[in-house]
Amino acid sequence: MNYCSHCGETVRLAVPQGDDRLRYLCDSCGTIHYQNPRIIAGTLPVRDGKVLLCRRAIEPRLGYWTLPAGFMENAETTSDAAARETREEAGAEVKLQGLYTLIDLPHINQVYMLFRAELISDYSAGVESLEVALFAEEEAPWQSLAFPTMEVTLRRYFEDRRHGEGDEHFPLHLEQIDLETREHFFNTTFLPAS
Amino acid sequence: MNYCSHCGETVRLAVPQGDDRLRYLCDSCGTIHYQNPRIIAGTLPVRDGKVLLCRRAIEPRLGYWTLPAGFMENAETTSDAAARETREEAGAEVKLQGLYTLIDLPHINQVYMLFRAELISDYSAGVESLEVALFAEEEAPWQSLAFPTMEVTLRRYFEDRRHGEGDEHFPLHLEQIDLETREHFFNTTFLPAS
Repeated sequence: MNYCSHCGETVRLAVPQGDDRLRYLCDSCGTIHYQNPRIIAGTLPVRDGKVLLCRRAIEPRLGYWTLPAGFMENAETTSDAAARETREEAGAEVKLQGLYTLIDLPHINQVYMLFRAELISDYSAGVESLEVALFAEEEAPWQSLAFPTMEVTLRRYFEDRRHGEGDEHFPLHLEQIDLETREHFFNTTFLPAS
Repeated sequence: MNYCSHCGETVRLAVPQGDDRLRYLCDSCGTIHYQNPRIIAGTLPVRDGKVLLCRRAIEPRLGYWTLPAGFMENAETTSDAAARETREEAGAEVKLQGLYTLIDLPHINQVYMLFRAELISDYSAGVESLEVALFAEEEAPWQSLAFPTMEVTLRRYFEDRRHGEGDEHFPLHLEQIDLETREHFFNTTFLPAS
């Protein structure tokens, strides 16, 4: 941030009076520009025990597999955002079954919210996906997942399911991806030849 | 938003190519300025069956009672944000016991995340609070709560507790405050003479 989005003058980075964090301040109009984490909402769509994944047609992580998810927009709810992203990326309608993973990524100012969901329609690749497909646990592209948040969510899901299929077996998981986990993930994951 | 925070030129509101929403666009440097919902994190601190509330020393809703909560900051986790706000507003340390209410407010682009928590220290009013106190259900200031999110969370808590004290009696509640609920709340709530 270089300029005040309100008045156009130059901003400076300083701790406002009564605050304890650096903010972008505009000395001209007095605006304090707060910056806050963003929410990525999505789903884990399931049918007949298989999970729906999308292969990304866009950067970052073009060619890698992900659960359908994306930035929550203003004026929508977290549930609506999750369902919308599933529609846009996977061409699929889902019935949400509850928030399943809430994942903090403090180093990149993101919070993931992934809902377990029942796939209740056909599916097809949206413009941001190369292909969309259902995978059983042993078929899943574990070595070419796009993000550590997706690996954590899928691993939790298949673990939980070993104990039963009822909702009580899928509690909310609060998770954090720290820098070490992230670096490990991106160093050891590779895109298979295709 | 009037000016590009990157280059300082005038922005315009338009739908970018390949998008379906209005965004602030800078024709000079090409930046698309996305705007997204913000997270308010906080806690429901409990000791001996009583709930800790803060009376607000700042606008909006100066003089009204709230659970300790505030905007999540960059570079922190949701749990850390909830504990930090509790420390700042109520001078209290808590042991978090799980996410309890996740409340969408799409009309003001906010998502509340309130954690159930055990109060494990003394407490005292921080600079943003006039006073801080513990309340049993029947003593709570139901007619002078600051926000509908706080009323929903407190009502859910006292309802759930009638069924038992174990963690299994306090599932995550996904809630939405719509405009009607909001208007009803602010019209019927009043600040008691003090």
